[in-house]
Amino acid sequence: MINYDEGDKMSQTNAFYAQSGGVTAVINASACGVIETARRYPAEIGTVYAGRNGILGALHEDLIDTGEETAEAIRALRHTPAGAFGSARYKLKGLEENRAEYQRLIEVFRAHQIGYFFYNGGGDSQDTAHKVSQMGAAMDYPLICIGIPKTVDNDLPLTDCCPGFGSAAKYLATSLREAALDVASMAKTSTKVFIMEVMGRHAGWLTAACGLAGDGPGEAPHLLLFPELPFVAEDFLKRVQETVETRGYCVIAVSEGIKTPDGKFLAESGLRDAFGHAQLGGVAPHLAQLVRDRLGYKYHWAVADYLQRAARHLASRTDVRQAYAVGQAAVKLALRGRNAVMPTIQRLSDEPYRWRVSSVSLAAVANQERALPRHFITADGYGITAEARRYLEPLIAGEDYPPYHKGVPAYVRLQLISVARKLPAFTG
Amino acid sequence: MINYDEGDKMSQTNAFYAQSGGVTAVINASACGVIETARRYPAEIGTVYAGRNGILGALHEDLIDTGEETAEAIRALRHTPAGAFGSARYKLKGLEENRAEYQRLIEVFRAHQIGYFFYNGGGDSQDTAHKVSQMGAAMDYPLICIGIPKTVDNDLPLTDCCPGFGSAAKYLATSLREAALDVASMAKTSTKVFIMEVMGRHAGWLTAACGLAGDGPGEAPHLLLFPELPFVAEDFLKRVQETVETRGYCVIAVSEGIKTPDGKFLAESGLRDAFGHAQLGGVAPHLAQLVRDRLGYKYHWAVADYLQRAARHLASRTDVRQAYAVGQAAVKLALRGRNAVMPTIQRLSDEPYRWRVSSVSLAAVANQERALPRHFITADGYGITAEARRYLEPLIAGEDYPPYHKGVPAYVRLQLISVARKLPAFTG
Repeated sequence: MINYDEGDKMSQTNAFYAQSGGVTAVINASACGVIETARRYPAEIGTVYAGRNGILGALHEDLIDTGEETAEAIRALRHTPAGAFGSARYKLKGLEENRAEYQRLIEVFRAHQIGYFFYNGGGDSQDTAHKVSQMGAAMDYPLICIGIPKTVDNDLPLTDCCPGFGSAAKYLATSLREAALDVASMAKTSTKVFIMEVMGRHAGWLTAACGLAGDGPGEAPHLLLFPELPFVAEDFLKRVQETVETRGYCVIAVSEGIKTPDGKFLAESGLRDAFGHAQLGGVAPHLAQLVRDRLGYKYHWAVADYLQRAARHLASRTDVRQAYAVGQAAVKLALRGRNAVMPTIQRLSDEPYRWRVSSVSLAAVANQERALPRHFITADGYGITAEARRYLEPLIAGEDYPPYHKGVPAYVRLQLISVARKLPAFTG
Repeated sequence: MINYDEGDKMSQTNAFYAQSGGVTAVINASACGVIETARRYPAEIGTVYAGRNGILGALHEDLIDTGEETAEAIRALRHTPAGAFGSARYKLKGLEENRAEYQRLIEVFRAHQIGYFFYNGGGDSQDTAHKVSQMGAAMDYPLICIGIPKTVDNDLPLTDCCPGFGSAAKYLATSLREAALDVASMAKTSTKVFIMEVMGRHAGWLTAACGLAGDGPGEAPHLLLFPELPFVAEDFLKRVQETVETRGYCVIAVSEGIKTPDGKFLAESGLRDAFGHAQLGGVAPHLAQLVRDRLGYKYHWAVADYLQRAARHLASRTDVRQAYAVGQAAVKLALRGRNAVMPTIQRLSDEPYRWRVSSVSLAAVANQERALPRHFITADGYGITAEARRYLEPLIAGEDYPPYHKGVPAYVRLQLISVARKLPAFTG
């Protein structure tokens, strides 16, 4: 409880929660963890406001009153993908460059008696939360800032994994396993090469997860193409041919971010449309074309795109629980007065898999990326090691199905009722 | 029971089962229905042989002995996608053009005392089964031929629906619903247009199913592009812009088979790679490019490809039951001496949804396609009608989850033990 009044009278402290960056199948489970936990401490936390479209909601004082939502609706966030309050790709500039934005945030927080700021996002967002906490101190405004980890890219440091990753990983491993069975069925007379493109421009975590689609010698997937390693077309083609000749077919997962040896994204390597414009189309069709031109095999390719990060119908139970847990922990950390920290997942053992929530300071997290370790990739560069499996398998374990209505998942739509504005419009 | 011997001694009649054409999430459920039912009639049916790689297995006398598989393994076919015995894209020519192939089939059947032929496929396969039955009669060989319906395209005539369609439809409706929530979250600062490409080159059944992703005015999906209607770029762009301006974002499902007003596939309309080769890439990236060039919106696109027809993890319970039921019915029809027929799904009522298995003659099925009725598409050409929903909703109803192991579905791998050959190699 923080005192905002000049006199002795205590007033209630409110909280602000915002979603940031690319959404996931379980970011709403974190929101659920925050709101449900806050509701259990009515003496300490008044209302949880959510930013409409993330941090923009704070800048433009467009606050959603989550107190207007029923317990059932908040509970249903746990099984609803994407960002229920709207997210934003909006990075606040440095404190020096754009002090006005940070000041505005503090003004909005002050106007609505917000003493807790929960920012649910990736590396940039953790950095922003850290800067907001610094600005609060500089403006002598009592504010507790907690970052809540979220990213399908799994690239945040100091946490064993990132909520959102496990579900995307489970979806990709399952989808590739299914498509591989399809290709195996067709290979004798039809498709011999199947290529699935995977998100993760800078880190190959999701590409590695595709390796969980199969196990054992010769089983699909046969080739994984990681963004960490240069794509050498001749070597790739040789291996595709070898695989088709020995196995009858070849299943490939490729990161959207693979680069040629000279460091260029393969996706930008020269396709042109009828008007001569560079085509930004995916890597998968590009590779498929290469396979056809050079080896003559019939191919199919898939680009799951948003499907892979929104597939709540196939979420990992581990991931859902961890997403909820970091939301819950964020509130508890805040109530213990911890400022400028982020709850993390700490792995206690692989088998049986055991984990707990810990925390780190935002200063330690900010602007660091965790790369896929080279020893998770096999020596030849096209597969994952036993160590990678030991790390990955627990993260995709368990199912957590949403309820269905008329054959499709019954995802919740919140009322999203705005709070009356108290300040003039932001012109920053 | 059919007598093959010249004397009085009765011998057992075997059966031959083959999978044909593109596989589905539930074609193995039909195989399960055939094999489990046959095993319940040991006095009438000896062994069920399966063709390795479909009809090629018969031509080349590569028969798999399903009797070597355990009851557990056969049971697991019910939850395993794709074609467990291998399928083939191989259309037998007309009886006049290639009599040798049909004769060879009969010779192989005779050599292995096969009196029942079950052919699990789409329209072409039903036609083949019909011709094989004619050849059996012409060669005075006692053979009962039963077609078993299968196609994600839902285009077989005289059946209310086709096993395989409901699960693909459920997957697409669910995936698009999830991706739409994702886009809605991001639209304020990022992606405004999302395009998902859907299978079904000639008929818009799967495109129509995408309409089940949402309901109510203004809800996603906002535009469905059917192969039955010409694609008029200017009208499409106008509607995309209107939707983004009124709703904030636009979600589109497009059939891979849409054509320009002059009848050309849009997918073949002029993309070139760096070497000037025509690019066979999908329709979705092509449309995305068009939207960007003309309207300037940030876009994302997805091509699920094989994922949509192999997604057993999200099968429709209705579809699984019907797939099993037509396999079971095929055996029962055969044992009743019905020849040259195909079991069908007959709808008895919409609400509550009730159905039963019926049958039609293969002669009536052969080489007919059932088109999507125009009254299933809204007058403006971009949505589905209430009547379409009434038809489609029961087909995607219910879930039927596979078991999981280490976070991915535990799909069965059969032993696939070949039977010793009795004939010289086929040189036809």
